[in-house]
Amino acid sequence: SVNPDLGSERQTASFCVEKLTALLDGGAEQTRIRRAVVEAIESDPEFSRENQYFQTQNERYEAAVRKAVHLQKKMHEMGWTENGPEYKYIYRALSGDVAFLLHRVFMRSISVLGSDKQIAKWIPLATQHKLIGSYAQTELGHGTYLQGLETTAVFDTATQEFILNTPKISAMKWWPGDMGRSATHTVVFAQLYIHGKCYGIHPFIVQIRSLQDHSLCPGITAGDIGPKMNFEHIDNGYLLLKNVRIPRENMLSKFCEVRPDGTYVRQGSQQINYFTMTTVRVSLIADEVLTPLMKACTIAVRYSVVRRQSKLKPGEQEAKILDYQTQQEKLLPQLAAAYAFHFVNNYLQELFNRGYREIQRKNFDMLPELHALSSGFKAVITQHCTAGVEICLRACGGHGYSLLSGLPSLYTKILASCIYEGENTILLLQTARFLIKCFMAASAGQPVPPSVTYLAAVKHGKCPAKNKLDFLSPDIYTEAYQHVAVRLTSSTAAKLQDLIQSGVKKHDAWNQCTVQLVQAAKAHCHYIAVKNFAETVEKLETKAGIQKIMKHLCDLFALHGIFSNTGAFLHDGYTSAAQMDMVTASYLDLLAVIRKDAVPLVDAFDFTDQNLNSALGSYDGQVYQRLYEWAQKSPTNQMSPAYERYLKPLLHNTLSKL
Amino acid sequence: SVNPDLGSERQTASFCVEKLTALLDGGAEQTRIRRAVVEAIESDPEFSRENQYFQTQNERYEAAVRKAVHLQKKMHEMGWTENGPEYKYIYRALSGDVAFLLHRVFMRSISVLGSDKQIAKWIPLATQHKLIGSYAQTELGHGTYLQGLETTAVFDTATQEFILNTPKISAMKWWPGDMGRSATHTVVFAQLYIHGKCYGIHPFIVQIRSLQDHSLCPGITAGDIGPKMNFEHIDNGYLLLKNVRIPRENMLSKFCEVRPDGTYVRQGSQQINYFTMTTVRVSLIADEVLTPLMKACTIAVRYSVVRRQSKLKPGEQEAKILDYQTQQEKLLPQLAAAYAFHFVNNYLQELFNRGYREIQRKNFDMLPELHALSSGFKAVITQHCTAGVEICLRACGGHGYSLLSGLPSLYTKILASCIYEGENTILLLQTARFLIKCFMAASAGQPVPPSVTYLAAVKHGKCPAKNKLDFLSPDIYTEAYQHVAVRLTSSTAAKLQDLIQSGVKKHDAWNQCTVQLVQAAKAHCHYIAVKNFAETVEKLETKAGIQKIMKHLCDLFALHGIFSNTGAFLHDGYTSAAQMDMVTASYLDLLAVIRKDAVPLVDAFDFTDQNLNSALGSYDGQVYQRLYEWAQKSPTNQMSPAYERYLKPLLHNTLSKL
Repeated sequence: SVNPDLGSERQTASFCVEKLTALLDGGAEQTRIRRAVVEAIESDPEFSRENQYFQTQNERYEAAVRKAVHLQKKMHEMGWTENGPEYKYIYRALSGDVAFLLHRVFMRSISVLGSDKQIAKWIPLATQHKLIGSYAQTELGHGTYLQGLETTAVFDTATQEFILNTPKISAMKWWPGDMGRSATHTVVFAQLYIHGKCYGIHPFIVQIRSLQDHSLCPGITAGDIGPKMNFEHIDNGYLLLKNVRIPRENMLSKFCEVRPDGTYVRQGSQQINYFTMTTVRVSLIADEVLTPLMKACTIAVRYSVVRRQSKLKPGEQEAKILDYQTQQEKLLPQLAAAYAFHFVNNYLQELFNRGYREIQRKNFDMLPELHALSSGFKAVITQHCTAGVEICLRACGGHGYSLLSGLPSLYTKILASCIYEGENTILLLQTARFLIKCFMAASAGQPVPPSVTYLAAVKHGKCPAKNKLDFLSPDIYTEAYQHVAVRLTSSTAAKLQDLIQSGVKKHDAWNQCTVQLVQAAKAHCHYIAVKNFAETVEKLETKAGIQKIMKHLCDLFALHGIFSNTGAFLHDGYTSAAQMDMVTASYLDLLAVIRKDAVPLVDAFDFTDQNLNSALGSYDGQVYQRLYEWAQKSPTNQMSPAYERYLKPLLHNTLSKL
Repeated sequence: SVNPDLGSERQTASFCVEKLTALLDGGAEQTRIRRAVVEAIESDPEFSRENQYFQTQNERYEAAVRKAVHLQKKMHEMGWTENGPEYKYIYRALSGDVAFLLHRVFMRSISVLGSDKQIAKWIPLATQHKLIGSYAQTELGHGTYLQGLETTAVFDTATQEFILNTPKISAMKWWPGDMGRSATHTVVFAQLYIHGKCYGIHPFIVQIRSLQDHSLCPGITAGDIGPKMNFEHIDNGYLLLKNVRIPRENMLSKFCEVRPDGTYVRQGSQQINYFTMTTVRVSLIADEVLTPLMKACTIAVRYSVVRRQSKLKPGEQEAKILDYQTQQEKLLPQLAAAYAFHFVNNYLQELFNRGYREIQRKNFDMLPELHALSSGFKAVITQHCTAGVEICLRACGGHGYSLLSGLPSLYTKILASCIYEGENTILLLQTARFLIKCFMAASAGQPVPPSVTYLAAVKHGKCPAKNKLDFLSPDIYTEAYQHVAVRLTSSTAAKLQDLIQSGVKKHDAWNQCTVQLVQAAKAHCHYIAVKNFAETVEKLETKAGIQKIMKHLCDLFALHGIFSNTGAFLHDGYTSAAQMDMVTASYLDLLAVIRKDAVPLVDAFDFTDQNLNSALGSYDGQVYQRLYEWAQKSPTNQMSPAYERYLKPLLHNTLSKL
């Protein structure tokens, strides 16, 4: 039975929830397929996550391997294939709680970096799981700066082998997933040396464990890097190589080859390879970043209409906490951000599909823009969504702090997305470098890519808004965002120029501008996100109340951004203080409007209770009952393990006399 | 041997580290006592935390109980007493990793709320550990709003007993520490009923477990609430009461008594009791909030001079990451905040000592101000420090994400401080209520408490700064902070008045202003923190470079606050855009200045390696060696537990045929 405090929220929805779900999925047919996958996964007890919050790292790992193996069977049973329409929903249905993700990266790296011969040899072995692959790039001493990797691969002409070594402790491979305990093979990135000359980083296939008994191969030291903030189910590993010899054929050689005599040959264009690395940043946004934020919003919003605390008016019933303005101000902007970034993700996917088609036609013109957008949005979205999940967690008070709320594990997992696949600050600086370059080009009248043409059209006007309702006009706020992005880019470009002209060396000057460059990159992405949301809303069908509620969310996303960063808009007087007060008024008004649809808006994300795995967020809102029943199953609910040895002697005064 | 990249940082300190440590401790003698306590604790293997990151919740709990019991012995051996000078250093030396903290709260509540007779009966029993106490206030359904607690205590004149019940699931006690598995007694807060009339919340001593065999008493259901984001060592518990009868004497009756015939008598003044609740918020700041931030800064700063990544200039050695402006901008403001809040804490301690003396003289005039300051600063400091620890964690990239860095557990623990002892938003609104009241009083020419007299002196001037160096003048920036605090308070007061005059009901009007009220409360605390830091620096001895470096940190703390919140200062034109550019320039300049002393500034916090418990933060900076050696001890470094059952059949193709 549904908690009436939650049920009543659903009766007053201003729009059709099912239609919004279909919009999010990209069509009703997609919704149907997704639900079928979820149903098949969740009805299979092998995939249960019920005990997850009680398990040790060892237990989590074992369960993830079990699920990965069982998944092979399941896919066969269900007729799902890796190229089928169901495939992309499996990972979400499992909440990512499965091993061998790096096995797929292993395969992809061979497909992209290997020669046809290498592909023909290794891909079938991997597909049939005659080996388990991993991908060993990061080292203890180097992550971001790939050129600095220290593992060596020396070519021995005599034996036609590469000799791999870890010359010092900082060169130890560290973090590769699936490598700590599972993998038999891995792709090792190492500095290639031929006849004493270094040719830079190259990829090598190395066997690390026996296919017979899983013992470590000669010269290999490997293991698990130990406890982490999350990802207990993954055996992130370390790897030390000592004179490990591999045949010449094991260097992945689509782009570079070492001939038997030691001649080094570079062939083909690596551009498509860079493109692949860039797309990874985009591909993780949906599953690893948006889904956790959507789950956190679902949990926090449902809890906030079930939780009653204190009174708004004396003599009345205690109020739902979502009726407090401060609670709305915490949660509703996160909800708006989840939608905003969902649409940005659609935009990026489309752009990358187009980029892929162009690149296949050998047109690489889009690459710099794609790189800048994927870097910037990876950073901005992971940052924003991580902060959003944390806000949701805190907004649930003490109960949010229990693992059973589901919120702590969402937070500790999404946090990693700010670090992996490019540390966020580094990525924003890459976007900034692109912006500065394009700004200079545009200033010189040269053509620039579409997403940055606005940099050329610097306007020195003022915001034309006359009352608070004007700030519900997408033209008004989009223009304001644009103005700020241009101002931050141009003023930082000017500072950079001034420093260089005053004699500061180029690299020092760059370093002295990086705090402001990061601001410019963020402002650029924020502007595009707002513009894209507004354009998306424009195109929506007006039926079933969808466009109207999405317009509200778009307004909220935009105004929240201004309200939280007023200085950027006030700085040069583009927005006046009086206008900023209008923004605040419109923003606070919107909170009360969207609050009415908060539950339908999270319902539209369509998470099942199993998928949420949260005592606070279930569809029926029976929060307290669930917390109590679940807590009773905790392994800590036995007699105190400290009783006989410590508590009893203490209470009975029979501890060895003090 | 110390890593030379760390060692060189210490040789260029601009001040005497030992003198700064003494300043932080409150004198060289205090430093000596603290170090003696740390030495005694750390040389005792019973208190080791070496395996902490590998342990399960059950193991953590058992170790915490063991340590609590052993601590009794240790204190006796060392001659430490609860009133001695060593006592306050024990908890820090143990990193809080010890049980029975609620036993102390149990004792304090009896001392404060109990009659002389009750104190005489229970305190000796508790002191001698003939019972283990807890404190059961929070329920599943109520935390913040105490009046809403639902547990009942009905007086039965016939038997002279109270009958305690949990009438519904939301009334279940939830969260009390030490109660899940250890406590034999607890203080239960319940709604008192006599002859069918409710008299509100009162405290009752209830035995929950047998003193003989620790089994649950009749009518008691209790257990552990299960896994949490941290505090695995504490058995936070639940408690269900079913017709539990306790004698009339068990209601703590210093302030209220139930006579045998059921007459309810209120006696004495509860003011001192409110004062006690208020001081708890201040007392937790040092150990639970500042220490974690100081530790996080120590870890992140030391790591950032040992970690080299990428090059600032081509052809040179890779740069220490602390040489990047963006890394300085992440870490150094946190360091400045740690010092700023340390001095705020001194200020609050002093104020509360004075308040205590006044209250003992039956002068309660200071109470509202003390309540407002303790509420506001509890919220602002916990919020700021939690965010600071998170920034430190993220600034260490992948290695910060490993539990072995120590940062994840610092973060997950400090996060709780935003929730317990008053949820932060609620607390800020209490401060805001005080501000609005005082602002109205001041506007009407009435006297107000010292910390808010500035509200009366609204000035409409402009910031007089003419160049970036002017912003290194404490008068300039303190005045700017003051101006913002006044503006936010007065404008919100005006909005509140306008709403009420336009016919909005008082409570609705308040709710519609709460987002802005929270801003005003934060601005007030920020102003006082800046002012207090500046005044503290003023009074420091100029010897040994201490005053100079503290002045830099004070400037950084102040300018960082402006730089991160420019809109508040630009809004009404008090600060111009040109002045804001000066702030930015001075702020960025300061980063480069303080960067030179970053390591000495964290060394001054004087944490031992054992106390930090971090592979990244050790005094010798041998990061990679430590990570590797420590990881090898992880319980995940055994043969894969999934091999025989899953991996082997998969690799050998002997899984049941697909």
